[in-house]
Amino acid sequence: MTADRPSPAVVLLSGGLDSTTVLAMVREDGFTPYALTVNYGQRHAVELEAARDAARRYGAADHAVIDVDLRRFGGSALTGPEPVPRPGSVEEIGREIPATYVPARNTILLSLALAWAETLAARDIFVGVNALDYSGYPDCRPAFIQAFAHLATVATRAGVAGRPMTIHTPLITLTKAEIIARGTALGVDYARTVSCYDPGADGSACGACDACLLRRRGFEQAGVPDSTRYRTPR
Amino acid sequence: MTADRPSPAVVLLSGGLDSTTVLAMVREDGFTPYALTVNYGQRHAVELEAARDAARRYGAADHAVIDVDLRRFGGSALTGPEPVPRPGSVEEIGREIPATYVPARNTILLSLALAWAETLAARDIFVGVNALDYSGYPDCRPAFIQAFAHLATVATRAGVAGRPMTIHTPLITLTKAEIIARGTALGVDYARTVSCYDPGADGSACGACDACLLRRRGFEQAGVPDSTRYRTPR
Repeated sequence: MTADRPSPAVVLLSGGLDSTTVLAMVREDGFTPYALTVNYGQRHAVELEAARDAARRYGAADHAVIDVDLRRFGGSALTGPEPVPRPGSVEEIGREIPATYVPARNTILLSLALAWAETLAARDIFVGVNALDYSGYPDCRPAFIQAFAHLATVATRAGVAGRPMTIHTPLITLTKAEIIARGTALGVDYARTVSCYDPGADGSACGACDACLLRRRGFEQAGVPDSTRYRTPR
Repeated sequence: MTADRPSPAVVLLSGGLDSTTVLAMVREDGFTPYALTVNYGQRHAVELEAARDAARRYGAADHAVIDVDLRRFGGSALTGPEPVPRPGSVEEIGREIPATYVPARNTILLSLALAWAETLAARDIFVGVNALDYSGYPDCRPAFIQAFAHLATVATRAGVAGRPMTIHTPLITLTKAEIIARGTALGVDYARTVSCYDPGADGSACGACDACLLRRRGFEQAGVPDSTRYRTPR
């Protein structure tokens, strides 16, 4: 990789607010982004269209969509018939691991990113996890990211050859409002991103799940207009 | 889990010699095996039929076959058009990481096993990796398994709640001959297992890839008849 040729980086892209912001940041940081979206049977599959749109808009050199049907294992309101929880207020979010937790999801997503990074000879993986305005999932915390980074050094040909992978988490300590402010400065059009865990067939957001509550408050605190169509008034 | 009710365990099952032996060992150890096979686009997809057969024969309570098309990423002779290497002798195997290495494969397989284990409330995962008679893949070594076990404790609801997952590798220090001897004692019918990286459409084995060379020598050293149909004479 010469200095004037941007390095490839794999970016996990769900089509949500966070990962779309990360994609815009990666290009701004001078990497060539390779966007990776995993269709794991999530009920909010409308995310996939948002991810395709984001990959086009924010300069992904390639966009891989990989199917891994986690509905076979169950255990989550995001992939099964259980209702998506609707916390009474944003303050209740993250106190316990909620029913929307998908077992081992981020381990699976990062494993796939690791595979692609190795074949691209990329040394950088970006993931939009956040441990502040988040649902309390264990696989969004710094301890998880550190453990995965160590695993990557012993799991791969590249790692064993002394070319370790860096797992970048540029959002991990930001508030949702800070993320929105950063993305807005980079020209991200959030109207096209999807956060809701339980979206309607018409693309509307429920307005009451963890992800909607955090998104709503984030736009308010950032002072940025929120064009999301919520089904539930405040 | 009461003492008289066997604990569930997830067993990664490729349909090869090693993982089929592990499946038989798991049942012998008193666990209820849940067999997990991943169809990742391997050219030796005839393995999948062998896996289905093994799951039935060796008492799997359930058998999940998950599709994850790693051909999208390339980078391996097992998933792409590159020829499978044919080492001149068994002594050459494992000196370097060969072209049959699949980037991040075992990380992906164990991630999926972790997801299923968590939804089953299982605390045990079995994988037939071997670091002695093997192709030199980085993700078969003890350092990799230790790193994954640590990751599992921070990645999951169960791990965070103080119910860590144990990653069992009962074959890791055995020779191929010892594995065959153990499986034979447990009644494993190796005629139905597939090791070859480049099998023919008729189910025959090439007789010349890493996996065939190690398999052939293993049966010889174990003094067990080898009914594999090899296309290449010794």
